Amino acid sequence: MIIKSVQNQIFKEALNIQDKKFRDENGFFFVEGKKQIDEIPSDWTVKQFFISENYKNYITDFKNIVTLSERLFNKLSAVRSPQGIMAVVKKKCYDVKEVVKNTGLFIILDNIQDPGNLGTIIRSADAFGVKAVFVSKRSADIYSDKTLRATMGSIFHLPVLENIDIKNLLMLMKKENISVFAASLKGEKYLNTVKFPSKSVFIVGNEAHGLQNDVESSADMIVRIHMSGAESLNAAVAASIIMYEMSKQLSLHN
Amino acid sequence: MIIKSVQNQIFKEALNIQDKKFRDENGFFFVEGKKQIDEIPSDWTVKQFFISENYKNYITDFKNIVTLSERLFNKLSAVRSPQGIMAVVKKKCYDVKEVVKNTGLFIILDNIQDPGNLGTIIRSADAFGVKAVFVSKRSADIYSDKTLRATMGSIFHLPVLENIDIKNLLMLMKKENISVFAASLKGEKYLNTVKFPSKSVFIVGNEAHGLQNDVESSADMIVRIHMSGAESLNAAVAASIIMYEMSKQLSLHN
Repeated sequence: MIIKSVQNQIFKEALNIQDKKFRDENGFFFVEGKKQIDEIPSDWTVKQFFISENYKNYITDFKNIVTLSERLFNKLSAVRSPQGIMAVVKKKCYDVKEVVKNTGLFIILDNIQDPGNLGTIIRSADAFGVKAVFVSKRSADIYSDKTLRATMGSIFHLPVLENIDIKNLLMLMKKENISVFAASLKGEKYLNTVKFPSKSVFIVGNEAHGLQNDVESSADMIVRIHMSGAESLNAAVAASIIMYEMSKQLSLHN
Repeated sequence: MIIKSVQNQIFKEALNIQDKKFRDENGFFFVEGKKQIDEIPSDWTVKQFFISENYKNYITDFKNIVTLSERLFNKLSAVRSPQGIMAVVKKKCYDVKEVVKNTGLFIILDNIQDPGNLGTIIRSADAFGVKAVFVSKRSADIYSDKTLRATMGSIFHLPVLENIDIKNLLMLMKKENISVFAASLKGEKYLNTVKFPSKSVFIVGNEAHGLQNDVESSADMIVRIHMSGAESLNAAVAASIIMYEMSKQLSLHN
């Protein structure tokens, strides 16, 4: 059966997932395109697949498939040239208190606005063996198509926790003896000269405004990135260089 | 006078600048918005400013201003919410043979496709004191609005050369005793263990396909970035980490 009416109940329910508020409450998100869908690990729950009418002959190896007319499929997709298949995936829930018991490197993102930056940072966190990424309230949505696309599947590889209240998180972290670092042009020490303890967290600030004052003041140390020209870096680049330096050092410990 | 007709000659000529081919031949590009325009150094030539009708009372300190109706201004602008002012700026011409005589770090971008990545790499090159960025043929356009926006003004701070034939450039560089490096997951040495000569160039490959085989084989050494998790980084992040490591080392030399 091919669903063709915008009044169809399955279609109407799926359409809600486009809305961040609904995603927050409901716990499902879309993954678009065969390449991204192939990245979903087997221990994540896929509720449903949607395919477009034109695509149905190409797909044989998925269960629970609903076929939509081209028109309806395009309405559901967030991209200009949809690739004919989307999955409705259940978010993973992580227990903050358990996650912070890990040893290693953590990252907190304070109000990162650009979905491309957010996704790129998650991808780098995966490459540099970061234990978890905490994304503050008022950041870009980690489950938007743009963010997911920039993660290149990394969202499935490490815990990424959203809607985080940073102050509460930092209190928990201090109890777990996690050392708190942040970066600023006014930092006292260069990143590459700091000895990072085996339980460390780095807070990355907003693209335009950097860190909030009260967040910055809760850091144990403010560090700076060694630059020799203009003192300005893209937020995802700065965050990635920080993770690179920390992970290099922490992997030498082990 | 406010230009309101799409048939107006000044408007029609300006409209051509939206076209990359015209930009390549003609040597002019658009810079949009007050913030970006403020970054243009005084030794760059601004041929003309365009402002929108609604914006004209805010602008007093520019010469050679043409006022357009809202409708025409929006047609000229590459962005969804135009900021009311655009400048027509002349590209700077650089002599490759002179540029490669410098001592320091150079970057070659081989077929970088995403304008955001391209602009971000130029911004990092500026931060890490790179002497020049060479952008190959078939890369994204350095003078598109998206690229310029991501450079955050860095395009004005260091030589960025476009439409480069990499093979010819590498021949020139070898004559100047510039050592050639490239990155790959199969690299022999880790980036942070390499001693970079004071005249070094790094070649950065395409987002999806990496370096072309013949380009890779012309490198003196292939290095790899230290990663502890998934071996995958955004191209702008990888390029920036490379520049960071090299610049840290080269600045210690000096």
